[in-house]
Amino acid sequence: MNEQDDILAANATYYEAFASADFGKMSHVWADDEVTCVHPGWPVLIGRPAILESYRNIFGNPNQERIEPHNAMAMVRGDEGRVICIELIDGNDLALVATNWFRRFDGAWRMIHHQASPIATAAGVAAPQPQGRRLN
Amino acid sequence: MNEQDDILAANATYYEAFASADFGKMSHVWADDEVTCVHPGWPVLIGRPAILESYRNIFGNPNQERIEPHNAMAMVRGDEGRVICIELIDGNDLALVATNWFRRFDGAWRMIHHQASPIATAAGVAAPQPQGRRLN
Repeated sequence: MNEQDDILAANATYYEAFASADFGKMSHVWADDEVTCVHPGWPVLIGRPAILESYRNIFGNPNQERIEPHNAMAMVRGDEGRVICIELIDGNDLALVATNWFRRFDGAWRMIHHQASPIATAAGVAAPQPQGRRLN
Repeated sequence: MNEQDDILAANATYYEAFASADFGKMSHVWADDEVTCVHPGWPVLIGRPAILESYRNIFGNPNQERIEPHNAMAMVRGDEGRVICIELIDGNDLALVATNWFRRFDGAWRMIHHQASPIATAAGVAAPQPQGRRLN
């Protein structure tokens, strides 16, 4: 796999951990320090304890909606890289744009930042667009 | 100045460019490539042409609201770093949390990513909190 595949795989692992409410897996996705997280509508969470606590709460919510990633796009430079994707929220028309930033430690990409922002309804989500165009 | 001061100064320049609708200054804030931008409610913009066009449109809007940055917090590692701050929107209670990611080129920090997400009303915005706590 090339670097882009590697970081996209790390991004997929994040959403797998989310979908299966697997706290151990989510805990491993996140790096040990210098981590920040902005859930939709939330203030920023800084540091691993606050971030992991937020996922523990989310995973404990029986009404948590399913999130499906789409149109993931990666940019990698050296040992840092970002993946930007659309998150479709199960059961309604809400779409989010998520930025997932990773850093490579001993060959493994781990998340150092997540931010998801609501955008327009999912109706317009389409195939990835060329450089310089909106993703949907 | 230390690295944190440098990147916070670059962040301040972004908001100065915005406040003065100075397209030339904004154009210089942004790096030449590998740039992404998520304005509130917008899909992601990828690449310098799309991003600069968005600022040209924003600056051309006579009703554009004023944005005041607060509580800026920086994390720097090597030649990359992020600043996270609260954006207060003039004239209403809306607050956003913005992530501004910079990369250092020849000693100058330039923006490679901006994302602003709406959060709760501005009423709760307070002084910066210690590591691991919410910013507001």
